[in-house]
Parts: sequence; structure tokens; C-alpha cells
Amino acid sequence: MLKGRHLIDPMDFTLEEIQEILVLSEEIILNPNDYSDICKGKILANLFYEPSTRTRFSFEAAMLRLGGQVIGFSEAISSSVSKGESIADTIRTVGCYADISAIRHPKEGSSKIASQYSSIPVINAGDGGHQHPTQTLTDLLTIKSIKGNLDNNVIGICGDLKFGRTVHSLIKSMSRYKNNKFVLISPKKLSIPDYISKEVLKKNNIEYLEIEKMDDVIKDLDILYMTRVQKERFFNEDEYLKLKDSYILNKEKMNKAKEDMIVMHPLPRVNEISYEVDEDPRACYFEQAKYGMYARMALIAKLLGVN
Amino acid sequence: MLKGRHLIDPMDFTLEEIQEILVLSEEIILNPNDYSDICKGKILANLFYEPSTRTRFSFEAAMLRLGGQVIGFSEAISSSVSKGESIADTIRTVGCYADISAIRHPKEGSSKIASQYSSIPVINAGDGGHQHPTQTLTDLLTIKSIKGNLDNNVIGICGDLKFGRTVHSLIKSMSRYKNNKFVLISPKKLSIPDYISKEVLKKNNIEYLEIEKMDDVIKDLDILYMTRVQKERFFNEDEYLKLKDSYILNKEKMNKAKEDMIVMHPLPRVNEISYEVDEDPRACYFEQAKYGMYARMALIAKLLGVN
Amino acid sequence: MLKGRHLIDPMDFTLEEIQEILVLSEEIILNPNDYSDICKGKILANLFYEPSTRTRFSFEAAMLRLGGQVIGFSEAISSSVSKGESIADTIRTVGCYADISAIRHPKEGSSKIASQYSSIPVINAGDGGHQHPTQTLTDLLTIKSIKGNLDNNVIGICGDLKFGRTVHSLIKSMSRYKNNKFVLISPKKLSIPDYISKEVLKKNNIEYLEIEKMDDVIKDLDILYMTRVQKERFFNEDEYLKLKDSYILNKEKMNKAKEDMIVMHPLPRVNEISYEVDEDPRACYFEQAKYGMYARMALIAKLLGVN
Repeated sequence: MLKGRHLIDPMDFTLEEIQEILVLSEEIILNPNDYSDICKGKILANLFYEPSTRTRFSFEAAMLRLGGQVIGFSEAISSSVSKGESIADTIRTVGCYADISAIRHPKEGSSKIASQYSSIPVINAGDGGHQHPTQTLTDLLTIKSIKGNLDNNVIGICGDLKFGRTVHSLIKSMSRYKNNKFVLISPKKLSIPDYISKEVLKKNNIEYLEIEKMDDVIKDLDILYMTRVQKERFFNEDEYLKLKDSYILNKEKMNKAKEDMIVMHPLPRVNEISYEVDEDPRACYFEQAKYGMYARMALIAKLLGVN
Repeated sequence: MLKGRHLIDPMDFTLEEIQEILVLSEEIILNPNDYSDICKGKILANLFYEPSTRTRFSFEAAMLRLGGQVIGFSEAISSSVSKGESIADTIRTVGCYADISAIRHPKEGSSKIASQYSSIPVINAGDGGHQHPTQTLTDLLTIKSIKGNLDNNVIGICGDLKFGRTVHSLIKSMSRYKNNKFVLISPKKLSIPDYISKEVLKKNNIEYLEIEKMDDVIKDLDILYMTRVQKERFFNEDEYLKLKDSYILNKEKMNKAKEDMIVMHPLPRVNEISYEVDEDPRACYFEQAKYGMYARMALIAKLLGVN
Repeated sequence: MLKGRHLIDPMDFTLEEIQEILVLSEEIILNPNDYSDICKGKILANLFYEPSTRTRFSFEAAMLRLGGQVIGFSEAISSSVSKGESIADTIRTVGCYADISAIRHPKEGSSKIASQYSSIPVINAGDGGHQHPTQTLTDLLTIKSIKGNLDNNVIGICGDLKFGRTVHSLIKSMSRYKNNKFVLISPKKLSIPDYISKEVLKKNNIEYLEIEKMDDVIKDLDILYMTRVQKERFFNEDEYLKLKDSYILNKEKMNKAKEDMIVMHPLPRVNEISYEVDEDPRACYFEQAKYGMYARMALIAKLLGVN
């Protein structure tokens, strides 16, 4: 039963509950008109304490396409937080106006705290370097819809694996399905942290490989998940400039990949995928954005119990 | 007849007109579905020249829950005012797009000026230290709904009584009902100004007491209206730090209060009400926020003449 | 066939296509209820990389009054652009969420680039000093509706004719209709650039006069199009202060004008039209704002193919 629940951590839901959401997402994709009014009279409050246009748009479009409405703010400066209000008070007040809320906050754990005081379902729309569960739902729906299966994939993940929040959640989530293997491609300084490699992968006897060069492994991958090198995660400008171009996907590398490999990216990209790759039918990152909207539609409908 | 009118000052409406709005508010609370489409095709323009998330959300949710739509801005920086446009021109243009407007402005009298040039109803959503009439409607609806009566109350008002705009309006409004008594609790430096004590209270022979300590009087109160000590109203930081903690409501003080006393607060609070009080059934400030939305729904419906 | 098209340059559409939009605009004005649901289920994305409240409100109200919904941002700071995303990527992602997009950008050519990557219709809502085609549609609809005819007018255009983007588009557009004459009133330093006077007016044998003083010609005009002297177009403050008051329309000048001359202005005005003129029935600039909303309604409906 998902009605009335919060989604803070990608692992909050069981495999069965995730499945429920994915199935509903695919139903919505097939018959959008059947769902275009199910949230009539409902309001989503988008509390974005830091800007994230893409995620905000995705939530807004999701709610609007279900017939609901949206209120919100898109950065802390235009909110009561400038008057020193706690997030606990904010969510309790917002619960007077809205039926469900999505919270984006630069501080880890903010959504969790909000959910503890909230009378309405809270969705974590990203909290610092911590969690971003609707990105994970997006990724799962994309893989299920395009690859047809969440099991038996060789999943390459490339870029900043140390700080990349979406990557950690993806590994944890895909580890719950059968027989997936991971190829972790990153500079050593940005390699996957122990709490993922030891606590998730080794603990569950999941096969994985850590490697520095994409060229050596791209031919084996079913999925290549590219990530942005986020400038703000680096300690200094030199370090950033030295590393940022190391992991760029281009046509040449794509030529070595399987014909049915798919390329994913949480977006926005800077230059880690060359524009020439966009034309390749295996480039799925814009489709992925669309799946993100459908996954959020299904999630909102489930948490509101209106589907 | 409220259709087509403006609401600039809380005293703009007669007692009968206020009553009309309160009655409609209560009808909406009981049968929200009957009102969920009455503003279909209507647009509210929220012109917020300074941020006030709570008030903005309340207006937006109100309009959306009536089936209407909302356009607006939430701070002056993203508006044409940066090109030097007058508020008279802004409201005349906004009147081409919207059916009703709520204006929040840091400068006293702004809403009044706007209303003089406007072809659509203008609601003052707060202008500087001056007026905030929908907060007053909120307060009246809260008292009427929870206490059952706007007459015969002993009303304690605590905090910054000098600069607190909501407090002045509340006193003026409640003075129009029968047999209410006021207990005004504040540091001397922040006590109620003469134009309220002399012009409103003494002039109308209303019983009131000015006192510095909440402890001495809390046992007599039917309503305790707490207010925030607004940093921006102080002349210097030292003064602020010295006074801000003087008037904090906690469990200990609540123990001395009547069993049916209600605690109100316009929100956001900083620390003038301890979190431990939130659990007390007499703490009504979050309910109050909800009443605020219903009061605004009734007001919008009345000014548009759609109810 | 306008369905699926972009509108980047005011000259993108043929005279017949413009006519189609004007005819639909007038139908919507006459029977708004017939069109109040035609965009149900559709979403407009307003991508405003620089603030322009008026234009943004006009687009939002237009979409909402067609029964559609709106997502967007109103300045670049709250968008992914701060993460370095290209406009090509932004529009491709936005195309996953929305059905049509309006783009306002300080850089010339931005909307054009966006349209080349977009899967949904893109409307240029102003790009730097370049183009602002929906203002042109607004002007044409205003003239057609009030004057009754887009041919045979003597059109005075006053103010900053060098940098004023709306002015250039208006001249190009009105030059396509029969027997219009132009009177171009400006300080010499802000006179019409060669690419308009030579390439458009002379090339098409259109009669025009360049003059410095409004008083000398106002009696001959059917239309007086006033424009703002934009501070940001000047090279220094002194230059601005010296020139800005030179071209102010007041009651005295209006007394010399024809009885059926109309005064237009793209708004916002600063002081180039005295407030005393507002009462004059020939002052049409606020009506013009309303026509702007209707022109955008028709445009959106045509590009979406829903009318």
C-alpha cells in the first residue's frame, strides 16, 4: 500500500512496490488520456530550496498531466526560510494548502526531517549529495522499458562515482534484481566509495569491475550510464580542469559498443557526451527524461491513492 | 454587495460584509466539492513585490481549489518594475490578463494606489508595516470556527505590538464585536501605539490591560495571540538580541492557561513558541493557516461574484 | 499550415498565415467560451532567461484561457543554465515535458538555435535587440481591430528607432500591406538604421519621412506608435539623461492630432507618455496589451493545431 507514504530514500520501497509504480508508469504511457484527470482538485507543492529546473519541470508536468495543480518556489530566496523558519514548520504549513509535496534541498536529510512532521506525502527531490529517489525510478523505468528487463544486464557506470548521488542509488537498486553486473569506470580519485563497493556489492556477491578506461570495456556493456563531472564537488579548479575531459563519450567509442547497448545520462550534461552521439539511436538520455515524467506521474498517483 | 470591490484595509468591509465572507468560508469547509469549479476560467494575478511564501501559497491554493488559475511573480527582481514601471501601469496591464489581483508590496499605500487605477478587484496582501487584511479575515474565521463566537472573549496579544501589522488590525476588527477585552503583553519599548490604544480602544470604551509579563495573565485568557519579533523592525542588532527571547510561550506557561484557551500565531514563528507546545491541543496556529486558505477562497469568490 | 511550426522572426509567416492568426484572434475575442478548453491537456513551457513580466504574463494568461497549463522559469538564475547546459539540450529536455515553448533570451539568435533542436513548436518571446514577433502580431491585431484596416495608414513611430526591436518588426510587417506611409520621429542619434530604411522602405518604394520633432507632423498621423527610451541601450548616463525627455507625448500635442488617431505603445512606458494622456479615448496602449493576449491565444492554438 503506497497511499499516504513518503519517498525519501530509493530503498524505502520494496521490489514489489517499485514494480507497482513501474507497471502504472507503463499503463500511463500507453493510455495517457485515462489518467489525465485523476488528480483533479489535488495540489502538489514543489519546495525547491535550490534551483533544479529539470527536476522541477518534471514534477510540475507530471502533476499537470494528471489534472492536478502545482504551487511552489524554485529557490530559497523567495521563501519564508529567509525569515528563519524551520523546515518542520514549513511542511506543516504547506500541508494546509497542498496534498503532496516534493522537496529539493542542499542539506542532506532535509526531506527526511520534513517527512517526520508532515501531514501529506513528501517526495525527496534531491537532498545534497545524498539521495534522489525519483531519478532512480526514472532510471529503472527507462531500463525496463527499453531493455525490456531489469535482470541480466552488464551495466557500465562512468564519471564521478565518488560524489554522484544518482549513481549510488542506481547501484543499490539494480543490485536488488537478478544477475546484473557492474563495470565502474572512473578516475581513481573519483572511484566508488566503500559503503557501496563493500556494503552493497561485495556483501551481496554481485560481480563488479573497477577500471579507469572506458575503451577497454565498452564492448561488453548492455547499458552505459554516463554522469556529469560536477564542478562544485571538486576541491579546487585545477583538479577539476585536469579531470573533467577524461571521460567523454564520442562516436569513436560508440563504434566499439554493442548494437543494442543504451546510453543513459541523468542530465544536464556538460561535455561528457559529444553532440555527435545524440544522433545515435542508442542514445537514450532524452527519452530517459520523458520516462522521468511518467515515473513521477505514477509515483504521485500512488502516493495520493488516486490511480 | 462585494462583487467588484477591493480589499485594502481590514476596515473596508462592514460587519455584515465580513459576516458574509465568514459564512461562505464555513460553507466551503463543509462542502469543498460544491465550490471546486466556481472560478473556472478566472485568473488571479499574484503581484508579490517582496517574498512571502506562506501568503502567496495561501492565495494560490485558494484560487486553484476554486477551479481558477494563477499567474504572478514572487519578488520584484523578476518583474517589469526593474524597468521603472509605476504600479498604476502594472495593475492596468495586469487587468488585461487577469480577473483579480493580490498585491504584496514593501511600501505602505501601494495596494491603495493600485486599486485606484485597477479595472479588476485588488486585494492587499500586505503593504509594509501598514495593513494585511486577509490575515485579519483568517484570524476572525479561526476564532469564530474554534471558539464559536467573535464576542465575549478575553484576548491576549503578545510580542511586538508596536510594529506588528496583524496585531493592529486584529484589535480594530475584534473591537467591532461585543464585549471583547484585550490583554496587551509586550516590552514597554514595543507596546501598542497611541493610535490604537487611544483612537480605537479608549474611544470605544473597550476594556484593556497593558502588561509586561505573560505569566501574570495567561490564566485569564480565552485567546492567546502570539507574534514574531521581526528582526527587520529593530533599530540595531543588540536591541533585537536583548528582547527577542523575552516573550516565549512554553509548556510551563501553557499549564497555567485555561483548558479551552486557544493559541494563535500568524506564522512564520522563529522561537516565540517552543516546539513542545505544538503537541498541545490548544495550539491552533497550523489550523489557522488552513482557515486562512478558506477565508481567501471565500473572499475571492465574493469579489468575483461567482459564489 | 501553421501546426508544428516555429515563430522566430516576424517575417516567418506569410501574409495569409498572419491573416489566419488575426482572424482566429478576433473569433476568440467574440466567443471566448468556445475556446476555453481547446488546449486542455497541453503544456506551455515559458523559458524566460531574462525577466519580462508583461510578456510572460501575456503568454501564461493566453495558455490558461485556452484551458492549457504552464511551466517555466522567469530568470536564468533559477534554471539549469547555471550548470552550463546548452540551450539545445534545454529545449530537447523541455520537449519531453511540454507541448509548446516560448523563449525569451538576452542573446540574439537563441530562439533560432533552440528551434533547430526542438521537437515542439518554439515561439521567440524576444531575443536581445533582435526580434519579438508576438509583439508584432499584437500590433497588427490592435491596428486591424481598432482602425479596421491594415492598409492606407499614416504611421508615426516615435522614440528610439535605432535600438527598438519592436519598431523594426512593425515597419517590416506594415510594409507588406498596401499604401502605408511612415513618419519616423527620433533624435538623429537614434534614427532608423540603414537595413530598415534602405533594405525595407526604399527597396519597396514605401513613402517615409524622417523628422526630429513630433509637433510638426502629429496632425497627419492615423497611428502614433510611441516607444520607450531604454536606458540599457545607451552608452553612458549623460547621453541618456540628455535625450530621454525629448520625445514625450502630452495633452498639448494630442490636441493637434486627428480625432481618430490611435496612440500605441509596447509598454512598459517610463515617462514618454504623460499620465494625462491616459484618459484620452485615443490612448490605446492598455487595450493593445489585451490584444496581445488574444494574439498569443490564436498563435498557440494554431501552432498546436487545436483550433
